[in-house]
Amino acid sequence: MSQLRREVGFPYTIMPSTMMVVGEGGLAGVSSLCGALNGASSAIFLMRGGLERERREAAFTLIRELFNWYEQTPLPDYRPKAPKFEIIRSVSRSPLCHVSVSTWCKKSKFKSFSKERSERCAWITGAVAKKTVELLNASNEGTFTPLYKLSAGTQSCRSCHDQGSVLENTRGLMDCGGCHFPERAKHPKI
Amino acid sequence: MSQLRREVGFPYTIMPSTMMVVGEGGLAGVSSLCGALNGASSAIFLMRGGLERERREAAFTLIRELFNWYEQTPLPDYRPKAPKFEIIRSVSRSPLCHVSVSTWCKKSKFKSFSKERSERCAWITGAVAKKTVELLNASNEGTFTPLYKLSAGTQSCRSCHDQGSVLENTRGLMDCGGCHFPERAKHPKI
Repeated sequence: MSQLRREVGFPYTIMPSTMMVVGEGGLAGVSSLCGALNGASSAIFLMRGGLERERREAAFTLIRELFNWYEQTPLPDYRPKAPKFEIIRSVSRSPLCHVSVSTWCKKSKFKSFSKERSERCAWITGAVAKKTVELLNASNEGTFTPLYKLSAGTQSCRSCHDQGSVLENTRGLMDCGGCHFPERAKHPKI
Repeated sequence: MSQLRREVGFPYTIMPSTMMVVGEGGLAGVSSLCGALNGASSAIFLMRGGLERERREAAFTLIRELFNWYEQTPLPDYRPKAPKFEIIRSVSRSPLCHVSVSTWCKKSKFKSFSKERSERCAWITGAVAKKTVELLNASNEGTFTPLYKLSAGTQSCRSCHDQGSVLENTRGLMDCGGCHFPERAKHPKI
């Protein structure tokens, strides 16, 4: 957004982008939707979206590509030039802050309030911003093609649970496995 | 936001609030964070938040109250004067679109793409907007006090998993039980 302000100017100069700080920590620290995805989605919709069905769907297609990429890619795939620490990558299988952070904590052995975790989320934010710019550039140049599909597991779940199916008791495009079939030890009985 | 435009005017007149359409269906139809909560949180942060720590925390406190209320209250507690259908209430135990919708589908026996479900989400949006205005009014008048606490189950989980605990492998304030200990039948083996 700050790049658009500098390079394009109006109307981006009047956009109150400080508002998007609300997305921090999965929305006000609640750990729901990853704030990098939330902010990037708003930026995509501001540039490519609108109330007209066609514009809305075009923006949603870019956003869904960003979500699928985020769920399926070992992240962060961005590394600053002079990093404070080295940060290992993990695959979140979910757009949710909580799942993304806890999956990385398990793999990296770092704690959820460690400075390493904080640094990792900064890198993730850079990675998401970079991918967002790439998607918007491709969209501008007319070269955008979706590359990421829903996981095979999710497609299987949807055959019984999604629109027009026998059960039709869910909606949405998050990877089902990230929560329903996670690769984690069972919780001890409590 | 439209009420602020009419009654306060500038700077709300220049806010590109169409941008918040991106929250629809749990963010571009992905079914992650409930769009009513996402939009309301942005509005709260626009009015009460900012980069300064004190303003940010004040806005976050209001938003967390909204999230806890949403998770714990039988919703929708708003009913239009001439409703198309009657809509039963359910307790989501989660701020996520997918969990909120699927919990309601199970209780109401309506499908996730039914017109009744769509109507239910419209009522929920009304309920969240109403609660948001009440919170902002109380904040304006200096009478705001948080009423909703994290569930007892979540407090118990946090004693091992949250900041400063033995495991410290998660962050956030979502109700753990909504996903980890749901009142639902187990999935048949697949």
